[in-house]
Amino acid sequence: MNMSEKNILQTLEVALGARSYHIEIGTGLLRHCGEKIGSLVKGRQAALITDSNVGPLYAETVKNSLEQQGFQVAVVTIPAGEASKSWQQAEEILTVLLEHKFHRDACVVALGGGVVGDLAGFVASVYQRGIAFFQIPTSLLAQVDSSVGGKVAVNHALGKNMIGSFYQPKLVLIDMDTLQTLEQRHWQNGLAEVVKYGVIYDADFFAYLQQNAADILNRKLEVSAEVIARCCRLKAEVVALDETEGGVRAKLNYGHTIGHGLELAGHYQGYLHGEAVAVGMVLAARYAAEQGMCDAGIEHQVRELLEKFRLPVQADRSLSIDEVMNGMALDKKVQDGQLVFILPEVLGSVKIVKGIPQSAVRALLQREYEA
Amino acid sequence: MNMSEKNILQTLEVALGARSYHIEIGTGLLRHCGEKIGSLVKGRQAALITDSNVGPLYAETVKNSLEQQGFQVAVVTIPAGEASKSWQQAEEILTVLLEHKFHRDACVVALGGGVVGDLAGFVASVYQRGIAFFQIPTSLLAQVDSSVGGKVAVNHALGKNMIGSFYQPKLVLIDMDTLQTLEQRHWQNGLAEVVKYGVIYDADFFAYLQQNAADILNRKLEVSAEVIARCCRLKAEVVALDETEGGVRAKLNYGHTIGHGLELAGHYQGYLHGEAVAVGMVLAARYAAEQGMCDAGIEHQVRELLEKFRLPVQADRSLSIDEVMNGMALDKKVQDGQLVFILPEVLGSVKIVKGIPQSAVRALLQREYEA
Repeated sequence: MNMSEKNILQTLEVALGARSYHIEIGTGLLRHCGEKIGSLVKGRQAALITDSNVGPLYAETVKNSLEQQGFQVAVVTIPAGEASKSWQQAEEILTVLLEHKFHRDACVVALGGGVVGDLAGFVASVYQRGIAFFQIPTSLLAQVDSSVGGKVAVNHALGKNMIGSFYQPKLVLIDMDTLQTLEQRHWQNGLAEVVKYGVIYDADFFAYLQQNAADILNRKLEVSAEVIARCCRLKAEVVALDETEGGVRAKLNYGHTIGHGLELAGHYQGYLHGEAVAVGMVLAARYAAEQGMCDAGIEHQVRELLEKFRLPVQADRSLSIDEVMNGMALDKKVQDGQLVFILPEVLGSVKIVKGIPQSAVRALLQREYEA
Repeated sequence: MNMSEKNILQTLEVALGARSYHIEIGTGLLRHCGEKIGSLVKGRQAALITDSNVGPLYAETVKNSLEQQGFQVAVVTIPAGEASKSWQQAEEILTVLLEHKFHRDACVVALGGGVVGDLAGFVASVYQRGIAFFQIPTSLLAQVDSSVGGKVAVNHALGKNMIGSFYQPKLVLIDMDTLQTLEQRHWQNGLAEVVKYGVIYDADFFAYLQQNAADILNRKLEVSAEVIARCCRLKAEVVALDETEGGVRAKLNYGHTIGHGLELAGHYQGYLHGEAVAVGMVLAARYAAEQGMCDAGIEHQVRELLEKFRLPVQADRSLSIDEVMNGMALDKKVQDGQLVFILPEVLGSVKIVKGIPQSAVRALLQREYEA
């Protein structure tokens, strides 16, 4: 790889008292990550967790940087894809750490997208009751969402992210260089979560996305860095207010209730996460309008922006509605058998609505399928 | 079972800010546990985790009490024994919870000894990123040690308690009635940890144990309740000072470094945990005296009290020293390849000593084997 010089564009803080940490956004960060990581931990053992897509591109750079700081590095490369986010894969990595006799002062470095970050974070959270953990997200989705905030998890056959912890990293390093190698579909996938921030918190940001949609789709560096920083800032604010999702953090789940149902119904082989969330956001906006909670215009604005980002806005009719409903029933956002939805009121503001009957959501899906 | 009336003898607090909780010690508590648990959680789904020894005796009582408070109860009975404290067993329980569509407001109730408590607590800590958890310890070991303080874990083939979390229960209910059915060997097993508290923190308590050794061995109710309460109080104080074992809490590991090595070398089939710790305490006291850290009299006092409690005080020579050393090298109490030992200075006070060379410990074991 032709790497740029180290250049930190923005540093943000996730303010969580003793568990506070920084998000550094810039270019050329990978080659120097060892210095930064080494300054934050005492131990000199590191497990570098990556996947079969990202590892061949960047693992060597990260490993070298860590070794220059005296780290003993064990690289674990998992198969790319959601199927790796499993209990069994977690155990395999734990076994590697034990085989290397890694102690409590060792650390885990996650180099990859959301799957790698969630899995590696979960491993770090349970290895010897928790060791230090660093996020180096290389996909847009991971950079704007999953790497910040400490939600770590693996999937279960009966539900996504059903097993996990709240476990904060010590640092999130976002190297914009890694986005150069991201497939276009995965770039777009991340943009779904970007749109989400606009809808739930920030109408100005939503307008910014509308105005700069073409440049964003084409990954212009300055605009992309600004988009990532704004998303991280919003995420950091929400996480600081509500680390363990007792309240306001649930707003980040806009589009995710139906989204998870769609993902599960497709056995994680159909939609990417952001794509499923895109459809979920459109349907949630429609439901809100039907309930008189908001103007129908919101659905149209959301749909239009998602379309500019080449994201799906209609549910895949080949998925069984029963399976989608089942997936939702297993979702963590269920209380007393009724669904919890995040519904827009106006652009930039959403409400957490509990007690939505499953029958109403089934009817919404049926109308969508028949439309 | 012929159960006594509900009678709370002592209530202690583990002071951990927002995560504070009570320890209730008494008789007749099982039959009324549902009221107490129901007052501490909003949800009405409970997974009752127990084992094949304890379940047949007490699960029905606990289940009925929970059901009277409107709980939907799923009972999971694991095979008794350390082998159940595994990654695979944890997954099986998580699957049961998901099959029952248990939500985030569900709770886990651990009814059994240390294995059940550690495993159930670990499951609670990772199910949907953490749900409420209650400890009903039924062995002396669990009552005086493992149920208090939030250390939850499963074992790995390469080391004991290598995978886990710090995850506090919402309540510890110690029903003295359950001790009536505890095998004598398991009673004695718990007394090893009782002796430990005297050595590390409380010379008066050590003297109390010496004076009342016969009554304690014979489980006289008042003396037993006093012993349990004093141990819980000491444990609660230490945990409040140092929840995640950054410092002083490590003193609770007196006897545990060699102890874990012995347990691992015997593949958990030989010594019970307390038995291995008993041997570890004697050897650690000897090592301390050899290093001039304390008087040789301490080893003799510790050994004499352990013998009164019918606990082993010599290492089992059939265990390979290499395997014992290997088990220790994997212990969490290792830093930079050197061992951390808890060594007595005087009765009632121990020191955390880092940087003990493995060769010195091997030599100690060799002398023990040749003696």
